[in-house]
Amino acid sequence: MAAAAATAAAATAVKQDYEALCKKLKEVSALSGISGLLGWDEMVFLPSNAVNSRAAQKSALAGVLHEKQTEAEIGQLLQRLQAANLAAEGLNEYEQATVREAARDYRKLTAVPKELAQREAELESRGYQAWVKARQDSDFSQFAPVLQEWVDLRREKARLVDPSRPVYDVLLDDYEKGVTAARLDEVFGQVKAGLVPLLADLRARGKAPSGVEIGRLCHKIAVALGFSLDSGRLDVSVHPFTGGAHPTDVRMTTRFKQDDLTEGITGAIHETGHALYEQGRNLEYDGLPVNQALGMGVHESQSLLWERMVGLSRPFAAYLLPLMREHFPQLPTEQSPEDLYAALNIIKDPSMIRVESDEVTYPMHIILRYELEKALVEGSIEVADLPRLWNEKMKEYLGCEPESDARGVLQDVHWSAGLFGYFPTYSLGAMYATQIFKASWARLLMGDAVGYKTAAEKELPGLADDIAAGKFERLKGWLNEKIHKVGSLPASGDELMTSVTGAPLQPQVFLDYLRDKYSQLYQL
Amino acid sequence: MAAAAATAAAATAVKQDYEALCKKLKEVSALSGISGLLGWDEMVFLPSNAVNSRAAQKSALAGVLHEKQTEAEIGQLLQRLQAANLAAEGLNEYEQATVREAARDYRKLTAVPKELAQREAELESRGYQAWVKARQDSDFSQFAPVLQEWVDLRREKARLVDPSRPVYDVLLDDYEKGVTAARLDEVFGQVKAGLVPLLADLRARGKAPSGVEIGRLCHKIAVALGFSLDSGRLDVSVHPFTGGAHPTDVRMTTRFKQDDLTEGITGAIHETGHALYEQGRNLEYDGLPVNQALGMGVHESQSLLWERMVGLSRPFAAYLLPLMREHFPQLPTEQSPEDLYAALNIIKDPSMIRVESDEVTYPMHIILRYELEKALVEGSIEVADLPRLWNEKMKEYLGCEPESDARGVLQDVHWSAGLFGYFPTYSLGAMYATQIFKASWARLLMGDAVGYKTAAEKELPGLADDIAAGKFERLKGWLNEKIHKVGSLPASGDELMTSVTGAPLQPQVFLDYLRDKYSQLYQL
Repeated sequence: MAAAAATAAAATAVKQDYEALCKKLKEVSALSGISGLLGWDEMVFLPSNAVNSRAAQKSALAGVLHEKQTEAEIGQLLQRLQAANLAAEGLNEYEQATVREAARDYRKLTAVPKELAQREAELESRGYQAWVKARQDSDFSQFAPVLQEWVDLRREKARLVDPSRPVYDVLLDDYEKGVTAARLDEVFGQVKAGLVPLLADLRARGKAPSGVEIGRLCHKIAVALGFSLDSGRLDVSVHPFTGGAHPTDVRMTTRFKQDDLTEGITGAIHETGHALYEQGRNLEYDGLPVNQALGMGVHESQSLLWERMVGLSRPFAAYLLPLMREHFPQLPTEQSPEDLYAALNIIKDPSMIRVESDEVTYPMHIILRYELEKALVEGSIEVADLPRLWNEKMKEYLGCEPESDARGVLQDVHWSAGLFGYFPTYSLGAMYATQIFKASWARLLMGDAVGYKTAAEKELPGLADDIAAGKFERLKGWLNEKIHKVGSLPASGDELMTSVTGAPLQPQVFLDYLRDKYSQLYQL
Repeated sequence: MAAAAATAAAATAVKQDYEALCKKLKEVSALSGISGLLGWDEMVFLPSNAVNSRAAQKSALAGVLHEKQTEAEIGQLLQRLQAANLAAEGLNEYEQATVREAARDYRKLTAVPKELAQREAELESRGYQAWVKARQDSDFSQFAPVLQEWVDLRREKARLVDPSRPVYDVLLDDYEKGVTAARLDEVFGQVKAGLVPLLADLRARGKAPSGVEIGRLCHKIAVALGFSLDSGRLDVSVHPFTGGAHPTDVRMTTRFKQDDLTEGITGAIHETGHALYEQGRNLEYDGLPVNQALGMGVHESQSLLWERMVGLSRPFAAYLLPLMREHFPQLPTEQSPEDLYAALNIIKDPSMIRVESDEVTYPMHIILRYELEKALVEGSIEVADLPRLWNEKMKEYLGCEPESDARGVLQDVHWSAGLFGYFPTYSLGAMYATQIFKASWARLLMGDAVGYKTAAEKELPGLADDIAAGKFERLKGWLNEKIHKVGSLPASGDELMTSVTGAPLQPQVFLDYLRDKYSQLYQL
């Protein structure tokens, strides 16, 4: 009896600690939500004179957030909770994951002294200015000194966070939990080996299809895909993005270019994928780390699944074409859904610019950046070598050489903010998306079967017909259950892939998808 | 030499304390700005599902704000600064006023223990619910218990803030600095005595003028009056209001009623007056209490100056009519600016409802509420007496009796939130507005002259012609200098009136304006 009572009292203490922790985490989550709203408003509505006052507001809020996130009491609660046997105390898997994720965040945040954080904040604005100027002048040497500072700062930070692991692995963890450079080498090595011959084939022997004009249906399509206007807003901004304050308050934007309407539609579908993830987050664990997105790669997988697996598919073209005719009666009537499908999937000429590239060439841009930034952080190459190495790799991977630093090594803003480890998530997202959509492919790959079947055929029979008919609820519901609600319960993208598709990330699924699709389109 | 050096060191210490104080005050100001943006967004854009998450965000931010505002270090800095001779230390009048206002705010905030603040917060939502229900059922007795709780809580709070002053004076100070019940008795007594015969005359002998239709020109007019779209936004909401995050980021809304277009236009002009005050705040003292609005009465004076002195004037009708014709070509061509002027200035039938009343009857609604809430707080009447006293006073002051509690004592939300001392500011604002616009009237009243001349004739010669021509820059500039930039430098509305018009508030200026205007309009 006495022993049972003591156990009950301990269980109560653990539960109390857990509740106290949640209260603090939810306060932090609410304040982060505000920060999301400030960011959205800045992009969409901020009056031009208010730039400085908004900066002061963001800085004040960031200061408060940091104070709250690093409170000593959170550390004490976490210490006690981590010492306890949480499962035995009756905490479910989501609650245990909340403790795990909160401890991870707290460890990272408190590992960095204030002085280092201030140097980072200062270098962020200086780095951005230097990059803008260097790109304007297309002169890498102007940018090199601040880039060197970032390399030094990031090494210092990684050593503070976890001196036992390679620097690049520690940095990667900020953007994609649980991924290592060793795993990326494996994945990207396989992708590179598969893509080089495919690109060569497409260029040497492929016949590019022709296209039709695309219209402004973005908002209609976003709502059709499942974006809830009761839990968010759709607006227009210079660069499309998805932000907001809460899963019930997701602010998504689109843009329309007069000269490239395709980009408007695919961009809107892409952002809708991000927004559906946000709106689908698990409100049962609202405000706790476990309901947050697993990582940037997984987030990107949701945007790319809707953009590429759905939006760029044959059945979607069948759905889209009549919708376009409804909005643009002047469209030529002789175009077929197959023409539209082909137009949406043209592989552009090999591009110098990552953001202008297509799904076949994009991974090569990413692999190039990954190899360079990893080598830089590890110290096997120097900042000064970057322009030369960049151009050499462009020639090797994409068969073209940039005519200037501006269109080469200086084209992306990321390194000016010290974001090493961010680029890989774009391509991880593309591969996750393919494997999630074609989930049973991965299952079959791992074992018992003879060929690929898509998730559509296995888990959601009739999905292609649904898409052609503009019915997206089943797919959205499936993703809600399998990905969105699960949030940060798995500790890595590979864990998530295993639970959803039966295997960790399989780059071959991605390569087969590309070869299969483009062989047909380009009549290889 | 040593004494001079010691003085210099002390000056430095005071300056350092002042700078440290300002840093903290600016942080609080930035966080308050965020709170303003959250409020605006909630009224204009919040998705319906996000009500709870927004409440959590507001509550988290309010908690942070309260922590920051009541930090012990602010108290220590203020104590040292108040002990020093700030003028001798080289602090200018704005800097001295910053210390004075910050000390006032700090004293008030720290006087209320957390437990009382929590009871207030709890009663706020309970009071609102009870009021909504009671008004629905038109049953005051349902509302009486929470109103009694508010009376008790407010008395308790006032005693904590300043036990040496009458309770109502302490409460008033939250909304209109430096005003006392004794001063209000004087001012409102004079207004009441003057308005009763005017209303009687208008009703007995006046002939109401006829009107023309008014259109949706609100945004155009707001910009014409001087609203800067580089420092704010114009949107539409159910109830028009002016809010936002900063003087450079003022968010103003309007509304359009199909059946009462006049209300749309005068409402937009009213809100523009508030917005011009906000956009005109003194950025040299950005984020400090001295750049804040002096009080709610003075703020209301700016909205009412533009609405009544400008928007409801003859020259404005001359400006407005062609603008309306431009937007509404179907308007009858035989209407003159004089017809429009008359239509905008119709005195409605005596109304039960404060918010539907006109500028002649409005003060009587306010005086009624002032007399009742003061007596309630002082304890000379009981909550249970309110419905009877309300109806008696309505009959006495406005000649009509409400047919139900819902249209009588329960019509306003203010008391449900314990806002005693707020109502007087509406009418103070109306009187300030008249006196500011007709500034030289007040000067003449005090001394050397023979009759009234308007500010237009004395300080801004040709103002009436400017208004008729749609030129508002000079008036806006004058208000920027005299009122907006001055902010909280004066310690009360009477001080501000004295500096702008040469005399403290003179209710006679307001009464003369009304009698003069309406005698003409109603051909008395």
